[in-house]
Amino acid sequence: MSLLTIGTVAFDTIETPYGKAERIVGGAATYASIAASYFTDKQRLVSVVGDDFPIAEMNYMKKRGIDLEGLDIKEGEKSFFWAGKYHDNMNSRDTLATELNVLADFNPKLPKAYKDSKFLLLGNLTPEIQLKVIKQMSKKPKLIALDTMNFWMDVAMPALKKVLKKVDLLTINDEEARQLSGEYSLVKAAKKIHKMGPEILVIKKGEHGALLFMNDKVFFAPAMPLAEVFDPTGAGDTFAGGFMGYLASSKSLNFENFKRAMIYGSAMASFCVEEFGITRLKRLNKSQINKRLKDFKKLAHFEL
Amino acid sequence: MSLLTIGTVAFDTIETPYGKAERIVGGAATYASIAASYFTDKQRLVSVVGDDFPIAEMNYMKKRGIDLEGLDIKEGEKSFFWAGKYHDNMNSRDTLATELNVLADFNPKLPKAYKDSKFLLLGNLTPEIQLKVIKQMSKKPKLIALDTMNFWMDVAMPALKKVLKKVDLLTINDEEARQLSGEYSLVKAAKKIHKMGPEILVIKKGEHGALLFMNDKVFFAPAMPLAEVFDPTGAGDTFAGGFMGYLASSKSLNFENFKRAMIYGSAMASFCVEEFGITRLKRLNKSQINKRLKDFKKLAHFEL
Repeated sequence: MSLLTIGTVAFDTIETPYGKAERIVGGAATYASIAASYFTDKQRLVSVVGDDFPIAEMNYMKKRGIDLEGLDIKEGEKSFFWAGKYHDNMNSRDTLATELNVLADFNPKLPKAYKDSKFLLLGNLTPEIQLKVIKQMSKKPKLIALDTMNFWMDVAMPALKKVLKKVDLLTINDEEARQLSGEYSLVKAAKKIHKMGPEILVIKKGEHGALLFMNDKVFFAPAMPLAEVFDPTGAGDTFAGGFMGYLASSKSLNFENFKRAMIYGSAMASFCVEEFGITRLKRLNKSQINKRLKDFKKLAHFEL
Repeated sequence: MSLLTIGTVAFDTIETPYGKAERIVGGAATYASIAASYFTDKQRLVSVVGDDFPIAEMNYMKKRGIDLEGLDIKEGEKSFFWAGKYHDNMNSRDTLATELNVLADFNPKLPKAYKDSKFLLLGNLTPEIQLKVIKQMSKKPKLIALDTMNFWMDVAMPALKKVLKKVDLLTINDEEARQLSGEYSLVKAAKKIHKMGPEILVIKKGEHGALLFMNDKVFFAPAMPLAEVFDPTGAGDTFAGGFMGYLASSKSLNFENFKRAMIYGSAMASFCVEEFGITRLKRLNKSQINKRLKDFKKLAHFEL
């Protein structure tokens, strides 16, 4: 089924203990839609770039079944740019530069053909923009997923609370779940967040895996222990893309399917961090993904 | 089969955001042997207490099948005492008092009947004491498990390295695994630690679960998400006790059994933190444990 993703398409300069990559293609929507493309071929993307964005990358995305009618290309302007440097432990990073450029005036307009999308992934942007996108849908999607971050809780909580009422699923990290709910226990945090709107909550814990709360059920997806984490950039967005891409390809939205979506998302994220930027995601194939999914089963399954 | 546990039997004063418990019974060997007693009835304990230690607690342990011939009771002396206060997040704590008392001169002597124990759990003590215990065994146990901490890495690394060569299994937390190996990646850390001696490595990550590395295999046991963590004291020791107690009751030491041991340990630890000290462990029953084990399966299992 159709999956509409809205989020950044951008350039990143990334420094990790393993090296530096200058002005490589990044952005939440880039990672998410490429990850999702391994599971669903009816994808739509809404974002904005400058005319500095390489045609080759757009052609690659189109080849992977991602419709770019909703990608606004601003002539004479520059794409969003982020530069960051990871610390030795890869768990924290310093932002060295953020140049909003085209993102400063981003006011997404959905192409008509996008308005009936069955799945909607709202990448981390201002809550106002996320709300505007929901309002443009002609029909309520089967699932609206929202990604956000502590920054919007600090500066735009009223708007964030408004958009939370309109979504089915929220993905945030553990610290953000605690901030949003005022509860340290993630079980209690989930109960409070359910009351704010999202019936489904995914708490991302990076190298410590991810938790799914849905009604009174809980599921835990571990992170694959890796010998090398080369570049963590985009891992969360890749998780969201794998998660939504799997759901868009599945027949129903029951708990078993959400559990599988957690594992698909975790598997895609475990590939993402193996190389700089989207490099590893681009040279993936189905059999590598299936092998990794089985490795997750080996990692987590036991018999009593 | 027989399980010999060596470690502290002590008093703790514990303050958590939920309240304060004064001079309650604690100590690594107490938690571990009570946890193990739900799975194996041939347990032996080596420790030391003063004559301030309550007879009722010793009788309780005996009733649970724990042989106390190896518990040295020092007349006119005081038991080891620790006082600590947990911070609001329960993940960190301040030590307010440590009174070694009888522990200062602890020089464990194994009763003759203990020397052929099949399973040996060496609780967190000085590496010299741990080594002395191994040397007193008349026959190599089927499994020697060692618990240690960063403190001994800081002040007694040469002795710790000696004892590591003689054990089959090591349990430490993630930061300690990094310190011991000099590797940030836990996969790489496990490889290096295997070369130091232990063929099996259990990395405890508290609320983030625990990892098992054995040969080239890896298994992850999640922590049960709980609405309340009342008192985390002894959770790691309870994990070790449940782990070793299960193994001592099982017929072989294959990877499947170690995986199950990880889940049994995690289940017992998830009970431990529900009340102060050993309170919850004391009023457990088999059907509650079996229910919790099944909850772990629900938490971690999925079908592809």
